[in-house]
Amino acid sequence: MTTVANGVNVQALLEARDALKGAPEAAQFTWRASSKWQDGVHSTTTVRDFFGLGQEQSHKAESVFEADHPAVFAAEDNGITPIEYLLVGLAACLTAGVASVAQNRGIQLRSVESTVEGKHDIRGILGADSDVRNGFTDVKVTFTIDADASRQEIEALVAQSQKRSAVFDALTNPTDVTVDVA
Amino acid sequence: MTTVANGVNVQALLEARDALKGAPEAAQFTWRASSKWQDGVHSTTTVRDFFGLGQEQSHKAESVFEADHPAVFAAEDNGITPIEYLLVGLAACLTAGVASVAQNRGIQLRSVESTVEGKHDIRGILGADSDVRNGFTDVKVTFTIDADASRQEIEALVAQSQKRSAVFDALTNPTDVTVDVA
Repeated sequence: MTTVANGVNVQALLEARDALKGAPEAAQFTWRASSKWQDGVHSTTTVRDFFGLGQEQSHKAESVFEADHPAVFAAEDNGITPIEYLLVGLAACLTAGVASVAQNRGIQLRSVESTVEGKHDIRGILGADSDVRNGFTDVKVTFTIDADASRQEIEALVAQSQKRSAVFDALTNPTDVTVDVA
Repeated sequence: MTTVANGVNVQALLEARDALKGAPEAAQFTWRASSKWQDGVHSTTTVRDFFGLGQEQSHKAESVFEADHPAVFAAEDNGITPIEYLLVGLAACLTAGVASVAQNRGIQLRSVESTVEGKHDIRGILGADSDVRNGFTDVKVTFTIDADASRQEIEALVAQSQKRSAVFDALTNPTDVTVDVA
């Protein structure tokens, strides 16, 4: 019997895994965001509803996010740049995974911190060099973890988190994205 | 001479493009995020500093983002899910591109709205089926644009934005992501 308290309800997740093995249609989620242009390259994006377990769902609160470009891009800096949101998602996803795997393995976490660095050659998006890609050149995540575990166990936690991370997969493998005008 | 006022300083961007053609080292940016585990799968991520144009830079304000899982995942829903941050970044990036391209083409925008939907089979992250990927199955973006332009011109704006989008590239093509323990 585990006595660790990382705050993750692993039992519920294991039950969900078993339940969804026999009900693949319930496992089909749709996440949504709605965005509105403000001025210049400033936009405001709202997230609230999603679909899953066969029905419409809603977060307990609506979340609103500002995006803009910084002053060095001759913009107003009313929010972080769009590409920085990918780093936020990556750090959060891997951290959630570390907590979940630690709970499942009976490892008590004391602190988990991470820094993410995304290298980006902006000649791509500016159209200055057609050989330069638009997105990140590469991304590096570094975890600092204090836990009741050996270094080897901590490295294994991080490796398992990466293996099951939705955002890590979305960044390291291609996804089909369709962009249309209504 | 353009008389449109979309709020994008296209002249500065075109000058940056020309300047960076001869100074590729200045075009090397590093975007950063720092994340801290709270409890369960809840984390808080901060974005403030970055590197570019050969020196340390800073947003005019620090931005803080909460991520968690919703109640249907037996979590506290203290913020949006990590994977939803990817949709925020995608909508914001494509919208910034539409505004920039419209400015460059002399098209006055009145409103630009978009919805993004990311399909996600959560059997992947739960480990319920090893044939199911962890990330999005696919993503669909739909723009509704009111502008002083024909439908064909509006579709061309969106197509050009997609062609130069950092986040569209990051989601549709693989990026090398390294995850380490300090």
